[in-house]
Amino acid sequence: MNRRTFLATAAGTPAMLRAATGKHGYTWMEIEKMLEHGDLKRGALTRDDLPTPALMLDLDAFESNVSTMTRYAKEHNRALRPHGKTHKCPEIAKALIRAGATGACAAKISEAEVFAQNGVNGILVTTAVVGKHKIERAVRLASQHPDTIFSVDNAQNVRDLNDAAAAAKIHLNVAVDLWVGRRTGIKPGEPALGLAQLIESLPNVKLAGLQAYAGHASHVIGFQERKKVSREAMAPAVETRLLIESKGIAVPFLTGGSTGTYNIDSEIDGISELQPGSFMFMDVDYGRIGGQDGTVYRDFRNALSVLTTVVSKPADEVAVVDGGFKAFSTDKPFTPEARSIPGLTYNWAGDEHGIIKMGGASVPVNVGDRIAFVIPHCDPSVNLYDRIYCLRGDHVEAVWKIAARGMSQ
Amino acid sequence: MNRRTFLATAAGTPAMLRAATGKHGYTWMEIEKMLEHGDLKRGALTRDDLPTPALMLDLDAFESNVSTMTRYAKEHNRALRPHGKTHKCPEIAKALIRAGATGACAAKISEAEVFAQNGVNGILVTTAVVGKHKIERAVRLASQHPDTIFSVDNAQNVRDLNDAAAAAKIHLNVAVDLWVGRRTGIKPGEPALGLAQLIESLPNVKLAGLQAYAGHASHVIGFQERKKVSREAMAPAVETRLLIESKGIAVPFLTGGSTGTYNIDSEIDGISELQPGSFMFMDVDYGRIGGQDGTVYRDFRNALSVLTTVVSKPADEVAVVDGGFKAFSTDKPFTPEARSIPGLTYNWAGDEHGIIKMGGASVPVNVGDRIAFVIPHCDPSVNLYDRIYCLRGDHVEAVWKIAARGMSQ
Repeated sequence: MNRRTFLATAAGTPAMLRAATGKHGYTWMEIEKMLEHGDLKRGALTRDDLPTPALMLDLDAFESNVSTMTRYAKEHNRALRPHGKTHKCPEIAKALIRAGATGACAAKISEAEVFAQNGVNGILVTTAVVGKHKIERAVRLASQHPDTIFSVDNAQNVRDLNDAAAAAKIHLNVAVDLWVGRRTGIKPGEPALGLAQLIESLPNVKLAGLQAYAGHASHVIGFQERKKVSREAMAPAVETRLLIESKGIAVPFLTGGSTGTYNIDSEIDGISELQPGSFMFMDVDYGRIGGQDGTVYRDFRNALSVLTTVVSKPADEVAVVDGGFKAFSTDKPFTPEARSIPGLTYNWAGDEHGIIKMGGASVPVNVGDRIAFVIPHCDPSVNLYDRIYCLRGDHVEAVWKIAARGMSQ
Repeated sequence: MNRRTFLATAAGTPAMLRAATGKHGYTWMEIEKMLEHGDLKRGALTRDDLPTPALMLDLDAFESNVSTMTRYAKEHNRALRPHGKTHKCPEIAKALIRAGATGACAAKISEAEVFAQNGVNGILVTTAVVGKHKIERAVRLASQHPDTIFSVDNAQNVRDLNDAAAAAKIHLNVAVDLWVGRRTGIKPGEPALGLAQLIESLPNVKLAGLQAYAGHASHVIGFQERKKVSREAMAPAVETRLLIESKGIAVPFLTGGSTGTYNIDSEIDGISELQPGSFMFMDVDYGRIGGQDGTVYRDFRNALSVLTTVVSKPADEVAVVDGGFKAFSTDKPFTPEARSIPGLTYNWAGDEHGIIKMGGASVPVNVGDRIAFVIPHCDPSVNLYDRIYCLRGDHVEAVWKIAARGMSQ
């Protein structure tokens, strides 16, 4: 029995359901149906109706962030291909494209497949597609979506892609991924030139551009220091572009940049495209890096939070919420922040719970109260949820499926 | 277009598909169909066919762990209700019940619903069900599965459950959850007695037992020290059981225990049931705690791993695999361990990647090679995957859906 059948067959006892309705009169079954189908009767539901832990998007802040970044890219004459590993949500990828983005980055082939199935165009797969079965998937994807671009950093992989493309009688667009200190790639300079020349020599792969992602630069605290680190990291990428072009090989783009370096890398000649992700949501981590005007990073607003419920209050000075390791990312050295209650601290309490305290004082919440937390790191947090609830103020305006959740293959 | 439709409509170019077949001649589309439907033609597929990152279960080790724990519980005359938050997989819950378990714990109501829909009986929901909509769900679940038990630790919540049960003309089984230093619960002693007396006084809730989970004891390193911590934590729970019984109220069970304390808590009179989880899989964290016979914890075998692929080799001494924060839990201070290659270290490289090194020496792998890692912490890692691939040696014997993945509500 699947979930929907279960809910349908469970409709048995009207008295019981009525007993549990909220002030608007909806039962949970009615609410769940509205949330699942996105039939929200504009504003009928509020955040009080969401089952916690719930991933919430503040639409005003999100739209402001999208507008800020797309306007910035346009004004600086840079293409923008925001990274879909952050949101994993086709609705968001399409919203960004409507606002002016060139397309979407996808971290892996399985994520790209989901985006493409749901109408996202202009996909750049930022990790090399390795192994015969994944190459089969890449060829199939490119057969249906010829504008897809695949990152490469290895000669044998390029030959394998070329052979599979030839057998399918198609061409594959590839981007040479450069190692600039983090993530993946081939060494800039001669090694990258050699790979570009191999691509030029093969009939069924076509050089679409270069990729250089300096992840170690993106979270450097302090704008000037971050600028220094990013410029040092990206310089070899720009030099490699010039080197390849000097051999008569066209390099249509060089893509780089992150939420921390979008306004640094876009000042570098030769970097033609930005692929930031976190700017649309923001998180505790990016909030710390500082901006051009001081120690607070104000470029983008916090749009993402997780709503929890207090499920236990063992003592006056301690309460327990229903979100733990499975509700929040845990890869950063910070905990979730409840910005609505100054002085409240969140401490991990295992897979399913968090303990909140007020420094020895009574915690000003009771069982049943709801607390929203800003999350430490957006990407792996979003990857824990199947839906993102989109709110306008307190009202649920949309529910978007995180359709590529778990697609790390 | 859903995933299946996409795969079906994508069948276009036979030449392309053949070009990408493996040695057994299956294309990726054929493999994916077998994996999705569990039609595995016994041993036709091997781990080389799995799309990485892939969550793998070593069935020999898993079956050995299940046998060890169920036999232990039986010999010590304790009920065993393994915690389903570890596996989130109805097939595993049912395998444990077939081996002798009383039922399954579920961390939250949404997890319990999925287990119940898939034929798991004897469910204990270990977190209080708070809020009118979740109580509506609890009443619905109990209407269909009357043996379900709900944890409670708050008087108003007990009254709310009673009222909802009365409106639905059913009874709800409840277990008083005791705060023994971690997770959730009401204070042992008089407060717990008061809650038990309230339950006794209400017509539609019924006291099924007590719960006391001392999570802070489970990972104490060294058996004797762990025993000391657990006995101190559990003593008030046992005293509370005696106190409630002394007032003429029956307490059918006291459940506690973890993978680290199953053979400690089961020696304590009054603890009648164990609810360990990790024993079936094991992880780096539990491997460190030490056993009765020394510093190595040999009670259970490591059954769980994540298979990755080397997708980049930027330099001779560094390689990059396709598993990062979205492939492994990150809540512990250890990294994944590749036990097949001594000296190899894994370092986090973001959401999608890990960097492997050999201490300055050449890394003995190339792009396309596959490396399996033992994971730092099993529960939140399993929660990242939709399927668990069950292997007998190198052969894929079954694919189980992690149907309650993401069900933290």
